[in-house]
Amino acid sequence: MNVVILAAGMGKRMQSNLPKVLHAIAGKPMLQHVISTARQLHSHHAAKICVIYGHGGEQVPSAVAAADICFAKQEPQLGTGHAVAQAIPHLDDAVPTLILYGDVPLTRASSLQRLVEAAGENKLAILTAHMDNPTGLGRIIREDGKIRRIVEQKDANEAERAVTEINTGIMIAPTIALKTWLGKLSNHNAQAEYYLTDIVASAVADGVEVTSAQPDAIWETMGVNSKVQLAELERLHQTNIAMTLLEQGVTLLDPARLDVRGSLQCGRDVSIDVGCVFEGDVELADGVKIAAHCFIKNAKIGQEAEIKPFCHIENAVVGAKGQIGPYARLRPGAELAEDVHIGNFVEVKNSQIAAHSKANHLAYIGDATVGSRVNIGAGTITCNYDGVNKFRTIIEDDAFIGSDSQLIAPVRVGKGATLGAGTTLSKDAPEGKLTVSRAKQMTIEGWQRPQKLKK
Amino acid sequence: MNVVILAAGMGKRMQSNLPKVLHAIAGKPMLQHVISTARQLHSHHAAKICVIYGHGGEQVPSAVAAADICFAKQEPQLGTGHAVAQAIPHLDDAVPTLILYGDVPLTRASSLQRLVEAAGENKLAILTAHMDNPTGLGRIIREDGKIRRIVEQKDANEAERAVTEINTGIMIAPTIALKTWLGKLSNHNAQAEYYLTDIVASAVADGVEVTSAQPDAIWETMGVNSKVQLAELERLHQTNIAMTLLEQGVTLLDPARLDVRGSLQCGRDVSIDVGCVFEGDVELADGVKIAAHCFIKNAKIGQEAEIKPFCHIENAVVGAKGQIGPYARLRPGAELAEDVHIGNFVEVKNSQIAAHSKANHLAYIGDATVGSRVNIGAGTITCNYDGVNKFRTIIEDDAFIGSDSQLIAPVRVGKGATLGAGTTLSKDAPEGKLTVSRAKQMTIEGWQRPQKLKK
Amino acid sequence: MNVVILAAGMGKRMQSNLPKVLHAIAGKPMLQHVISTARQLHSHHAAKICVIYGHGGEQVPSAVAAADICFAKQEPQLGTGHAVAQAIPHLDDAVPTLILYGDVPLTRASSLQRLVEAAGENKLAILTAHMDNPTGLGRIIREDGKIRRIVEQKDANEAERAVTEINTGIMIAPTIALKTWLGKLSNHNAQAEYYLTDIVASAVADGVEVTSAQPDAIWETMGVNSKVQLAELERLHQTNIAMTLLEQGVTLLDPARLDVRGSLQCGRDVSIDVGCVFEGDVELADGVKIAAHCFIKNAKIGQEAEIKPFCHIENAVVGAKGQIGPYARLRPGAELAEDVHIGNFVEVKNSQIAAHSKANHLAYIGDATVGSRVNIGAGTITCNYDGVNKFRTIIEDDAFIGSDSQLIAPVRVGKGATLGAGTTLSKDAPEGKLTVSRAKQMTIEGWQRPQKLKK
Repeated sequence: MNVVILAAGMGKRMQSNLPKVLHAIAGKPMLQHVISTARQLHSHHAAKICVIYGHGGEQVPSAVAAADICFAKQEPQLGTGHAVAQAIPHLDDAVPTLILYGDVPLTRASSLQRLVEAAGENKLAILTAHMDNPTGLGRIIREDGKIRRIVEQKDANEAERAVTEINTGIMIAPTIALKTWLGKLSNHNAQAEYYLTDIVASAVADGVEVTSAQPDAIWETMGVNSKVQLAELERLHQTNIAMTLLEQGVTLLDPARLDVRGSLQCGRDVSIDVGCVFEGDVELADGVKIAAHCFIKNAKIGQEAEIKPFCHIENAVVGAKGQIGPYARLRPGAELAEDVHIGNFVEVKNSQIAAHSKANHLAYIGDATVGSRVNIGAGTITCNYDGVNKFRTIIEDDAFIGSDSQLIAPVRVGKGATLGAGTTLSKDAPEGKLTVSRAKQMTIEGWQRPQKLKK
Repeated sequence: MNVVILAAGMGKRMQSNLPKVLHAIAGKPMLQHVISTARQLHSHHAAKICVIYGHGGEQVPSAVAAADICFAKQEPQLGTGHAVAQAIPHLDDAVPTLILYGDVPLTRASSLQRLVEAAGENKLAILTAHMDNPTGLGRIIREDGKIRRIVEQKDANEAERAVTEINTGIMIAPTIALKTWLGKLSNHNAQAEYYLTDIVASAVADGVEVTSAQPDAIWETMGVNSKVQLAELERLHQTNIAMTLLEQGVTLLDPARLDVRGSLQCGRDVSIDVGCVFEGDVELADGVKIAAHCFIKNAKIGQEAEIKPFCHIENAVVGAKGQIGPYARLRPGAELAEDVHIGNFVEVKNSQIAAHSKANHLAYIGDATVGSRVNIGAGTITCNYDGVNKFRTIIEDDAFIGSDSQLIAPVRVGKGATLGAGTTLSKDAPEGKLTVSRAKQMTIEGWQRPQKLKK
Repeated sequence: MNVVILAAGMGKRMQSNLPKVLHAIAGKPMLQHVISTARQLHSHHAAKICVIYGHGGEQVPSAVAAADICFAKQEPQLGTGHAVAQAIPHLDDAVPTLILYGDVPLTRASSLQRLVEAAGENKLAILTAHMDNPTGLGRIIREDGKIRRIVEQKDANEAERAVTEINTGIMIAPTIALKTWLGKLSNHNAQAEYYLTDIVASAVADGVEVTSAQPDAIWETMGVNSKVQLAELERLHQTNIAMTLLEQGVTLLDPARLDVRGSLQCGRDVSIDVGCVFEGDVELADGVKIAAHCFIKNAKIGQEAEIKPFCHIENAVVGAKGQIGPYARLRPGAELAEDVHIGNFVEVKNSQIAAHSKANHLAYIGDATVGSRVNIGAGTITCNYDGVNKFRTIIEDDAFIGSDSQLIAPVRVGKGATLGAGTTLSKDAPEGKLTVSRAKQMTIEGWQRPQKLKK
């Protein structure tokens, strides 16, 4: 099968410098959604995807380039039929050609599969839908149940306007015939454009059967021409994702307040509270609880870990039974083993922390290797950066880091070592011993408190 | 009155290891909602509650055990009639028996009260409801206005299917008769189960009047079989809570973005912004303002206190006119007197802070007793933990704690004492004086900035 | 034109100490919305606004006082006609008088403009609306298309009750005639009140034409009598704001989870994620991205700046390409130049930070002037407050502030200076050199870890 995706439109109503088809639904460009769907069909029908681009220059090809995609530029833009015609050099005559739209992002592969099957080798098949209010859309005109033509709103008579079956624009055609029909298109109409829908008349004239299939849901055929419509489809898509998660057994405290922009894999007995946002690839193992208002991107959260409110986790791993947050920030490269506790106002970056270690309060742990059962006191900071280079801090098992210590990397705290509160550690701390750097506490006699200055 | 609550179902569609009736609405197991409602009835009718459990083993009894509840195990599970029959040994013949469902959590006591009154001493009374779309539900078949039988969807003829009055399953029966009827149930049906609804036919045959009552709202009779339905009832319940708060005069910036999981008592002129979550018992006094995205659990907030965005408060008390947050974390045992200010990135745990004291920036105050008018500088940390023991810090009235000080407990800062910035306080600081621990500031001559290392 | 705004009602159902008209929609008192709308009309018709107040004493005049507003107190409150009559001394006979309501906050100026134009100089014009369910509202009774009278629900016969055109209460009348009609009002009715609607009968009797105009939307005429209605109008208004932003090309991830309480000006290609709250005057330049759950008040955010989740920004300026958050707090007077990075758990107050400088972790920067390319290490604190006075810290270009330093203001860090980690800086640090204050690191031999104390 050939797949042609029309993606040349400007999308003036989007009021954006970005080509319309690159605007995102669930964090992914609309065009990429369509390509992904086309690839799902390909698993059954090895095929080539041809993207017709135009407005926005090379932004579209560079955003979605891949080995299985070819690009054809439509310039000037003279209508949908003209757009498909740009793909002609790329189409394999031996297989049919499916026509999709880069701004209709949510069509399901299952619906397209039915369309493909309806078409078989020799038929023209149109994805049609029944709308309560078809005003403005092209009507499917049938005679004796067979599709005869598509009539646009402005050309329809009263009987035709009463028809509620509409053309979604998505269709599949035998490729040789399609090429012929495209060649016959004329632009003798009000817009002076070449309309793809006019191939239906050619098919009927040629005695080619015109058939149809219907999508599972109307929203599969909705297109985006404005930010209002983009927001509508975003919420529709998010509702679908939430329903799928609920059906898989995930507990969602409010399906309307979940955002998943990527892949969210959940184990059994996972619970997600309100206001959470997931991006990229996230895996939540059995029994994970995500509290309210967390942001989690590209992360693995282990069994029965608990993520408390207001956490920000990105490119990180949390081990089983981890206790994270509230207000914990795990940055890229944070890898926490089993039962690690990271508490409020703690930032962990590019660090491995072994089992049962804790950093519960106000700390920065960057470029560190932390052993097991380590206690990192409040206010501890790994000084990993000298202004130009980054160095690692190593804290061995069972160490106790006193509050407000600074560990000037590269530095090592030995196994079972203790640092006194407020230590500035510039050399290694030997294992098992207490290391401190501390000025003597003094009380100043005769000192007076500051007075309010006159201004 | 006897109350039998059916709670034995597996809830396969919940896809959970937890028995279905233990899944929570508003933070409380569904079964516990039903028990609470039954107890409200009990205030008028001292009664015994019998919970029929089965799937999930002893999890159900251990989750809801109480002095007024007895448990009967249904094993195997042979239908609703069989389930009720397990309760027979526990039922007092002198009073009627009300049958409720552990997965129908939101029935109001007022609706059940009407049912109880409709039944009186001698009638069988069924809670029925009128549904726009009754498909799939058991229909109430009446003759001359009197209930004659309940017909299941699959057994209903066309006229019966047109009936919109349905059986909710909730009913109340005279107990001696109920026992007789349960004994006559047969499982000669497609599912080979004993159906409770078949007692209606027995009642009619015995000349016992069958009457009905209706709930105030359809959602009172909705049951939960899936996470989708659990989420639906959660939101319905939260909407009801929000409407009740609005009617009490609370200002809610968005009723759809409030979650109350427990008891929320509000004074006059309380305002709650979007995205707030309340758990356990929370009291907000007159004039309290809760800003957006706060999490508050088991807390009392005093008059005209202001809780700014992103606060996390648990088992804590905020005094009148307190200024809390943004990003303040009050942990268990935080007790703040009048006009205390706790600012951003400050954590307070198991500490009493007296009136007019402030900790506005980046601090950890744990196991401390803080006097009045104390100023705790940015970065101050009470070192309350030596790795095995916890000790208290005492800061007396009018003390000024310089920024980034560490107070190594047990330690006392005297009345009106000042600590210099960066002090590590390991011994008491005398009152009224300046105490510091500070190394001499030195500038290193000839020092070169680090260079970028080659990798 | 004269504008009379009725704002005397108690609003008992609001259950508040605040007069009803001072309750806020989108952060602004309802009465202030009505005044703003009236002023938009004034741009065409220089006019005087007269607010009729009563309940709540002088709170209403003091809340909205302005040069173009006069106030008249209605006491006791004897009905809407009586209320308008209090304005008589303030009305200019030469121009018509428009009557608005302080608890009907969302009427659009465009709708009122149509009403004004319908009235011309000599007609009585009523803003009417067609309601699907008009129950409870006053019906507009027409004969031959002309308005003859308004009939209240309780006085309406069956034919009148079938009328779906209702009186919104908003009307405009020739002023001399209005004064006459108000003088003729009687309170011979069930409530013993003087009803403004009775002037319609007087107008008809006097042969004055009664005409009408309709609002663009029904919600423009909705009034607020309870917190439920206040919440409804709040959400309606927020939906309108979100739709306007979408139409301007702003990307909103969820229009239902945006709150704008003031003025939000957005450039091209601005994106706002879920859960954000904007207050006061906020400007977002081209390409700005606001991530989830941010609170932003009175701020300017420069081109292509990125505000990450959980930021709290108030009375602050972020320069172009700034990277802010997550969990950054910018307080009043924070002014960040181009490409400044403020990271997690960092607070900036009353400070200017020049281009390319960074404070990425756990810091307090208050009353500081920071140069370009400065790196402020984790845990750095400007000690700007001695308990009574505040002083400034100056950090010159290219300085490197080691982690956990305290800068005791007033103090200056010279150009290109470096502070060692943990430095307590009490005197100026010379440019280009390393300055430290550090006690010698020591390891204590023979020290034993604390043992668990018996309790």
